[in-house]
Amino acid sequence: METRGTDDDEIIQLEKCALERWCRGDPSGFLEISAPDVVYFDPFLERRLDGLPALTGYYESLRGKVSASHFELLHPRVQRWGAAAVLTFHFVSRGAPDDVHRWNCTEVYRRDPEGWRIVQTHWSFTGPPRGGLSLH
Amino acid sequence: METRGTDDDEIIQLEKCALERWCRGDPSGFLEISAPDVVYFDPFLERRLDGLPALTGYYESLRGKVSASHFELLHPRVQRWGAAAVLTFHFVSRGAPDDVHRWNCTEVYRRDPEGWRIVQTHWSFTGPPRGGLSLH
Repeated sequence: METRGTDDDEIIQLEKCALERWCRGDPSGFLEISAPDVVYFDPFLERRLDGLPALTGYYESLRGKVSASHFELLHPRVQRWGAAAVLTFHFVSRGAPDDVHRWNCTEVYRRDPEGWRIVQTHWSFTGPPRGGLSLH
Repeated sequence: METRGTDDDEIIQLEKCALERWCRGDPSGFLEISAPDVVYFDPFLERRLDGLPALTGYYESLRGKVSASHFELLHPRVQRWGAAAVLTFHFVSRGAPDDVHRWNCTEVYRRDPEGWRIVQTHWSFTGPPRGGLSLH
């Protein structure tokens, strides 16, 4: 793996800018940096979304509906080699004071001719789940 | 992206073999194909695990405790370029007839000198969550 450098910072900055727009109800920040073959998981979907048209349809259905007054991107880590970069982090978003959501996120970026593009997004809740479900 | 080929099949096969062992309570299948810098998310952890020693400690605490009589790896998709491959799939595991778990999984593989190695694992439950939490 290469040492941390401008590519890592650029990727974290791309993510932060897209998240800032997302938290104001604007999904275009993510759509503009997602590759045609992007795949997507989040906890609300029954099935992985495959491809930018599917992700666009989903995100457009949410346009103007997401609002978070504050967010934090915590513990970002970039693993990068060749034209691949894996950004993982924890995310905390706050709307009302008692409306706090804690997330795990994995973004896989690929260096395409257009620049770094997201090819895989995975959002999930940071555990443990309520109800005490366990792995075994 | 390259066309589907033997690398894609090899990656899916690596994953299946590790899962077969996992479902018999043996985490070594995953540990043997995880890179030193692997990072890991699952729904039971409060924090991402960073590095093979941390993942080893966690998996060893589960050795012999996981048991699934049947599992299915559904809709595998490999996005591959250069020395990077992103495998995403849905996973269904069954213990007792009413003990069914549905998962989203992302595995990022890197072609290291030793072969394809996992550098990032993200497990989460396939939604929507009970209780009706929504994205907005």
